[in-house]
Amino acid sequence: MNVAMICRILGVVLEVEAAFMTPALGISLVKGEWAAVAGFAAAMTAALLCGVILRRIPAKRTEYFAREGFVTVGLAWIVLSAVGALPFFLSGSVPNYIDCFFETVSGFTTTGASVLTAVEHLPRGILYWRSFTNWLGGMGVLVFVLAISPFSDQSGESLHLLRAESPGVNVGKLVPRMRRSTSILYAIYLVLTLLEFVLLAIDIPVFDALTASFATAGTGGFSIRNAGMAVYSDYAQNIMTVFMLLFSVNFTVYYLILARDFRRAFRNEELWWFLGIYAAAALIIAGNITSVFGSFREALHHSTFTVASIISTTGFAISDFDAWPWLSKTILVTLMFIGACAGSTGGGIKVVRLILMGKIARRGVYRAIHPQQMKVIHLDGEAVDESTVDSVGAFILVYVFLFTGSVLLMALDELDFTTTFSSVAACFNNIGPALGRTGPTLNYSCVSAGGKLLLSFDMLFGRLELYPMLMLFVPAAWKK
Amino acid sequence: MNVAMICRILGVVLEVEAAFMTPALGISLVKGEWAAVAGFAAAMTAALLCGVILRRIPAKRTEYFAREGFVTVGLAWIVLSAVGALPFFLSGSVPNYIDCFFETVSGFTTTGASVLTAVEHLPRGILYWRSFTNWLGGMGVLVFVLAISPFSDQSGESLHLLRAESPGVNVGKLVPRMRRSTSILYAIYLVLTLLEFVLLAIDIPVFDALTASFATAGTGGFSIRNAGMAVYSDYAQNIMTVFMLLFSVNFTVYYLILARDFRRAFRNEELWWFLGIYAAAALIIAGNITSVFGSFREALHHSTFTVASIISTTGFAISDFDAWPWLSKTILVTLMFIGACAGSTGGGIKVVRLILMGKIARRGVYRAIHPQQMKVIHLDGEAVDESTVDSVGAFILVYVFLFTGSVLLMALDELDFTTTFSSVAACFNNIGPALGRTGPTLNYSCVSAGGKLLLSFDMLFGRLELYPMLMLFVPAAWKK
Repeated sequence: MNVAMICRILGVVLEVEAAFMTPALGISLVKGEWAAVAGFAAAMTAALLCGVILRRIPAKRTEYFAREGFVTVGLAWIVLSAVGALPFFLSGSVPNYIDCFFETVSGFTTTGASVLTAVEHLPRGILYWRSFTNWLGGMGVLVFVLAISPFSDQSGESLHLLRAESPGVNVGKLVPRMRRSTSILYAIYLVLTLLEFVLLAIDIPVFDALTASFATAGTGGFSIRNAGMAVYSDYAQNIMTVFMLLFSVNFTVYYLILARDFRRAFRNEELWWFLGIYAAAALIIAGNITSVFGSFREALHHSTFTVASIISTTGFAISDFDAWPWLSKTILVTLMFIGACAGSTGGGIKVVRLILMGKIARRGVYRAIHPQQMKVIHLDGEAVDESTVDSVGAFILVYVFLFTGSVLLMALDELDFTTTFSSVAACFNNIGPALGRTGPTLNYSCVSAGGKLLLSFDMLFGRLELYPMLMLFVPAAWKK
Repeated sequence: MNVAMICRILGVVLEVEAAFMTPALGISLVKGEWAAVAGFAAAMTAALLCGVILRRIPAKRTEYFAREGFVTVGLAWIVLSAVGALPFFLSGSVPNYIDCFFETVSGFTTTGASVLTAVEHLPRGILYWRSFTNWLGGMGVLVFVLAISPFSDQSGESLHLLRAESPGVNVGKLVPRMRRSTSILYAIYLVLTLLEFVLLAIDIPVFDALTASFATAGTGGFSIRNAGMAVYSDYAQNIMTVFMLLFSVNFTVYYLILARDFRRAFRNEELWWFLGIYAAAALIIAGNITSVFGSFREALHHSTFTVASIISTTGFAISDFDAWPWLSKTILVTLMFIGACAGSTGGGIKVVRLILMGKIARRGVYRAIHPQQMKVIHLDGEAVDESTVDSVGAFILVYVFLFTGSVLLMALDELDFTTTFSSVAACFNNIGPALGRTGPTLNYSCVSAGGKLLLSFDMLFGRLELYPMLMLFVPAAWKK
C-alpha cells in the first residue's frame, strides 16, 4: 500500500475543500454572520494547513493500483466530511459534532437526511455550505480534483481514482483521454444546474433557487426551508420534478446528444427501463392516493414529484408520504433500492444493475431447463462479458450482506421495524427521508449517536458503491 | 412437453394421497365423527377416481427431461393441496374453500401458517390429517412416490423428479442407486420421528405427542392446541427444541454417521455454520429478553426454543415473540431468510447457499483489487465448480425478484409494513407465524382471499425452491 501517495492526494483534496468554502465565507461576511465567519475561517485554516503538510510527504514509490484507488477514495470522503463538518460545529450552528458529521456526510453523499428539526434560523453562509455539499458530492470530489489536478493524465492515479469513485458499469469508454472526459461531464453538470437555477429564479427567491438547484443537481435533497419544498409553487415543484429526472439519467446520454450520435444516445436500455419504472410507479401511486388529495390531477402532481424524488434518490418532499396508503409506501421503499441510472448523480443499486440482475436470473431459469446450452447476456445490443456479469452478482451479494448487517445493528436503537428498515434503506441508497419516525415530516434526531454513526457509514458505503469503504476494513487490501 | 407422462405421475400421486388419508378416516370412524368420515370418504373417492383415470392415459413418448420434472413437481404439489383441502371443506370443519386450500398448502409446504382462530373443537381425524400433511410434506411427496413406485430406477423420471423436488446442492452423490438412497433417507426420517414420539409420549397425551412429532419432523409447526406449544411442560418443549434442530440438519450427515464415516460427516461447513448461527442468535436474544422473563435462565429457555423454531422454519411458539424488543424481532426475521441446512426438512434460503453467497461476495471484493487473478471457491475442502456458483447467484436473484414482487402485491391488503414484509418472509420461507397482525398469538385470518392465494403460492415457491413453480409460468419451459 503506497501510503505516501495516498496522503499527497488527500492533501490536494483538503486544499480544494478549503477553496470551496470561500463563497460560504463570503456570504457570511456580507451578511455579518460573525460566528459563521469564524467557523469557516478556522475550518479553512485547518484544512489548508493539513493539506499543505500532507502534500509535502515525499513519495518514494510511484506504484498506484486499484487498491490504492479504493483506499484513497474511501479515506478522502471520510476526511472531507470530518473537515466539512467543522463550520457547523465551530460556528455553534449545530452543537453536537456527531450531528455535524452526520449532516455533512449526508450532504456530500447526496443523501439529504437531516438531524436538524429546523433550519431557517441558521446563518446564510452555513445554509449555502450545507446545500453546496450536495452539489459537490453529486459529481464526485476526486473527479473534480482530477479535472484540475497536476496528476498526469496517463498515470495509474487518474484511472484508479476515477474507477473507485464513479464505478458505474463502463467507465472511461466514452472519451479516451480521461481528463477531457471528466471535464466535459462536469461542464454538462454545471450547465444543467445553471439552467435549473434560472428557471427557478423566475419564481422563487434567488438564494432559494440557488440552493434548490444545488440539491437537485446532486440529487441531494437538502432544503433551506423547515417545511421543505412544500412552500414553493406548483411551477417550481414541476421544474424540480423535471430536473430530478434529468439528473438521474446517465450523463453519457447528454454527451452523445451533444455529439449528435442520437442512435447510440437512445439505444440505451437503462434509460427506457428507468422512464418505464418511473411512469408506472407514478401512475399507480397517483391512483392509490387520489382519495388522499381529492382529485386525480392533484394526486398526479404529488406522485410525479415524490416518485421522481425517491427514484432519483433526491429525497425532496412536498407532502407527508408517510401518511399515504401502504401500497404507495411499499412502492416507494422498493424504488429506494432501485435508484437512478449509472453515471448519473443519483444513488441506489442503479437501474442498469437491476436489468443485468433480471437477465442473470432469467438465464439461471433457462439453464435449469437446458443445462448444456451456453447463453450470453446482451445489453444495448452488445454482449456483456462474463467478468462484468460476475461482478454485478458479487456486488448484489455484498450489498445484501452489508444492508442486512446494518439493519441488525440499527435494531439496537429499538425503533420499530418500519423505521429501522426504511432508515437504513433511505441512507444506504442516499435518499434521505424514510418512513415512520424518520419520515418526511420528521428527521433523524430520534436516532442515537451510535445509530447516526452507523447511518453515516451506510451513506458513504452507498454513495461510493461499497468497495472504496469496504477496502478500509479488508485486511487483504492492506497486505504487501 | 410430455403431458401424458406428467398426467400418469399425477395419477400415482393422487392414489398415494388417497391411501394416506386412510388413518385419518379410521380415527374419525372410531371417534364417530360422521361429518369428517363423509368428508374423507368423498375426498378419497375423488382422488382415487382421478388417479385411476390419469394413470390410464397412454404415453406415446418416453422423453422426460428436466423441464418435465419441474412441471410435474409443481403441478403435483398444487393438485395434492387442492385435493388435500377437500376433507376440511366437505366435513364442514372450515367453511371457506380458499381457507382450506391455504391451510393444506401451509401443511404440505411445512409452513404451519394457519387461518384458524381455534382448532381444539375440530374432529380428531381432521386434526390428524392436518398434522400429517406436515410430516408428508417434510420429506417430499414425489420422493416417497419414487421410493415405492413402479418407475424404473435408471429412468429420467426418477432423476428429474428428485432433482426438482429436493434440489439441495448435491443430490444423488450419496448413494449411486437412487431408489435405495431415498429409502434410506425416509427410514432415517421415520426413526427420528418415532424417537421423538416416544420421548414426548412419556410426558404428554399420545395424540398430542403424535401430532407434535409430525409437525416437528416436517419442520411444519401445526399444533392441535389453541395456545400452541405453550401448554406443554418445559421437558416437552426442550425435547421439541432438540428435535427441531435435528430435523434441520442435512440428512446425509446421519447417513454418514450410520456408515461410520465420521470424518466426512463432520467435515461439513454447513453444519458448523448452522450451529454457530443458532448459538449466537439464541444467546443474544436471551440477553435481550431477560428483562421480559425476569431471569436469564427463563429467557434462555424461551430463546433456545424460539430460535430453533424459526431457523428450522418450524414456527412453533411458546411465547408471544411479537412482544419482544425490536432487536430480537429483527434477528428472528433475519433467521427466517437463512433457514435450515440443505437436505433437511427445513426451508428458507438454506445455510449452504448463505455460505456460498459469502464466498462469492468475498471473491468479488478480492477481484476488485486483483482483477487478473482467478480464485476457485471451496466448500468442505473441495473446489466448487463455476456452474454451481452461477446457479446459486441466479437462485438468489430469482428469490429477490419473487420476494419483492410478493411484498408489493401483498401491500394491496393495506396491512402495515411490518405485517406485510414479515408475512411474506414467514410464508416464502415456510415458517408460519410472522410479526404484527400475523404474529404468534394471531393468525392469517386477517388476510384477504387474494392475499391468502398469494401467500399459498409463496409457500409453494419457497418449499420447492422456486423453479418447479416458476416453470409453470415460464413459456420457454412449455415450448417444443
